[in-house]
Amino acid sequence: MNGDSAQAAGLKRSEFDLPDGLVYLDGNSLGALPRAVAARIDGAVKAEWGRMLIRGWNQAGWVDLPARVGGKIAKLIGAPDASVMVGDSTSVNVFKALNAALDLMSDTESGRTVILSDSGNFPTDLYIAQGIAGAQDRWQLKIVDPDEVAGAIDESVAVLMLTEVDYRTGRLHDMAALSAAAHRAGARVIWDLAHSAGALPVDLGNVEADFAVGCGYKYLNGGPGAPAFIYVRPDHADRFGPRISGWFGHEAPFAFDQHFRPASGVQRMMVGTPPVLSLSALDTALDLWADVDMHEIRAMSIALSQLFIAEVESRCAGFGLRLASPRDPQRRGSQVSFRHAEGYAVMQALISGNVIGDFRAPDIIRFGFAPLYNSADDVRQPTGRSGR
Amino acid sequence: MNGDSAQAAGLKRSEFDLPDGLVYLDGNSLGALPRAVAARIDGAVKAEWGRMLIRGWNQAGWVDLPARVGGKIAKLIGAPDASVMVGDSTSVNVFKALNAALDLMSDTESGRTVILSDSGNFPTDLYIAQGIAGAQDRWQLKIVDPDEVAGAIDESVAVLMLTEVDYRTGRLHDMAALSAAAHRAGARVIWDLAHSAGALPVDLGNVEADFAVGCGYKYLNGGPGAPAFIYVRPDHADRFGPRISGWFGHEAPFAFDQHFRPASGVQRMMVGTPPVLSLSALDTALDLWADVDMHEIRAMSIALSQLFIAEVESRCAGFGLRLASPRDPQRRGSQVSFRHAEGYAVMQALISGNVIGDFRAPDIIRFGFAPLYNSADDVRQPTGRSGR
Repeated sequence: MNGDSAQAAGLKRSEFDLPDGLVYLDGNSLGALPRAVAARIDGAVKAEWGRMLIRGWNQAGWVDLPARVGGKIAKLIGAPDASVMVGDSTSVNVFKALNAALDLMSDTESGRTVILSDSGNFPTDLYIAQGIAGAQDRWQLKIVDPDEVAGAIDESVAVLMLTEVDYRTGRLHDMAALSAAAHRAGARVIWDLAHSAGALPVDLGNVEADFAVGCGYKYLNGGPGAPAFIYVRPDHADRFGPRISGWFGHEAPFAFDQHFRPASGVQRMMVGTPPVLSLSALDTALDLWADVDMHEIRAMSIALSQLFIAEVESRCAGFGLRLASPRDPQRRGSQVSFRHAEGYAVMQALISGNVIGDFRAPDIIRFGFAPLYNSADDVRQPTGRSGR
Repeated sequence: MNGDSAQAAGLKRSEFDLPDGLVYLDGNSLGALPRAVAARIDGAVKAEWGRMLIRGWNQAGWVDLPARVGGKIAKLIGAPDASVMVGDSTSVNVFKALNAALDLMSDTESGRTVILSDSGNFPTDLYIAQGIAGAQDRWQLKIVDPDEVAGAIDESVAVLMLTEVDYRTGRLHDMAALSAAAHRAGARVIWDLAHSAGALPVDLGNVEADFAVGCGYKYLNGGPGAPAFIYVRPDHADRFGPRISGWFGHEAPFAFDQHFRPASGVQRMMVGTPPVLSLSALDTALDLWADVDMHEIRAMSIALSQLFIAEVESRCAGFGLRLASPRDPQRRGSQVSFRHAEGYAVMQALISGNVIGDFRAPDIIRFGFAPLYNSADDVRQPTGRSGR
């Protein structure tokens, strides 16, 4: 396909149900609705739940959804087959991954006490780590500035836990370099890919991440509150007991044994009954990625964000906007943020004008670029699209 | 309304979308589809997610769903306002409740070490407790026979954790008596109401339970894998730190503070982003209960299950079926189980004949009665309804 025309049109814009006249630049917060999802959900409700009832677990394959949806995500993030499961929220998955990573360290590495993260991490990741450190005296959470992470990796660190793309500024960490540094220092690494999966190429196998988690409702377009994913490096998966040991993480859930025996592999990270309706939405949303090259997505994302910065800085010069994102697109995820003293009011005015981004206190306005549906038209003519 | 006619027709059968000719006696595993749910979900997908996009969190009230749906459940289980939240799976909620209950004990009650449960508890509850006991040396899980629970409550017990209705036999615990005994002994009590909510009257306030959890997809008809609920006694809610401390349990999630400060009340039990689509399904499913008297439901349930036992024992005499449920309906939840050496084959044959119950190893066949849609017709004429 022709890259220029795709960029003008949005790679798969016709596959999304977006309101006419709306410029939607908030797919980094909630992805748009893929057209095929409504029919899939309707079928999951009426034909599966309504007609099959309990038989749907086998007849409709509900029981396999966490692994099947995980398999589609694995392809997008460079993870091996059968290393990703989908279920629970990102926060719960951070809890599972961090406990597992600490478990891997606790017997052999008694001198390590630090969970290292940065102030650019999403707050819930930090809250989860605070909760774990608060409950187990051994661990302490150390939060440094994003630029200071590399320098803070030393032999006190048990686990390095970072989000690749800063949710406020879009600043991109160098996953491969930081993972390698952590491993050289003997630490484990957890990556939160909430703003990475579906936004830029990720190659978990190559960076040798130990654990990863991520979100189903941003660039993956799984719908509001879609279930999240969790990745476990295959050679770790049988070496820890899951911290939340529920029946779907059991070796044989339907044997109804009285004693927990963890399933092999990443399956042991599952806990309760899978959320079938929301997994079904995400399953269909992920089909849009089957023939997509993430390097093409990345090129389009960079072209869009560069164009956006250029247009904003030229049209809005003198109005007090300052670029909050790295200017170098190689150091930025798929979003652009500006600071403005009246950021909240600016964003409210944009939304009133049918241009949707979002605001993050105290002064950040964010714009996400999802090349599956965003195009140069969204960037160049926002006022022309609002209808008047 | 006339109780007899309701019993013949199913109290609200016309509000459910059930296949013609099917006798569905498995609502204790997966509740049937309320007709209004399909339209609600379709609206949540197309009109809310599709049109409002990120604005749905406020415009469609997504952010309030966990508490709003929790409020509807609170009415069904005799819980005070604002004491129930909905989200995560039952298993994850057991994990939260058990950790919280143990936290309440740990400072002041150092002699208590036992988590007491019984062999009739659903396996995932036992697995969760095993995981907690395995990770924290102080606690040990003690599993006794259901009949021995009362006698095992002593001053070694930190937490009594039970499911009111045994998932295999339907045997009903005396919640009020066991809670009182546990409290007299100084222990905390957690009730799993998976087979209780929507099945029989529950009065959490009156039994003074400390915590409760339960399932959205059985008698509450929230759909496969629907989110679960959690109840915290209001005077406990501000006395423990949530074990899984995520951003939706923060006092001010959208302040994006770096440090966790628990929300007040049961809100602190929330963790990640609420699952909007599945919460919407459950929200609408719960509207069916607004004008329902749980004592009427209980009377209908008992009438149906007594009729069922009488019909089975008379029609199937001599075929090796043994009643596995208590014969006294006051000691039984809303299900009837029989044992049969060829139980699995028997259930497969029934399913082939359009009568759906389920099988639990090694020899139990179970039949659930949901008076919102089940009626005496389901019990009396199953073969006549299969249509051949």
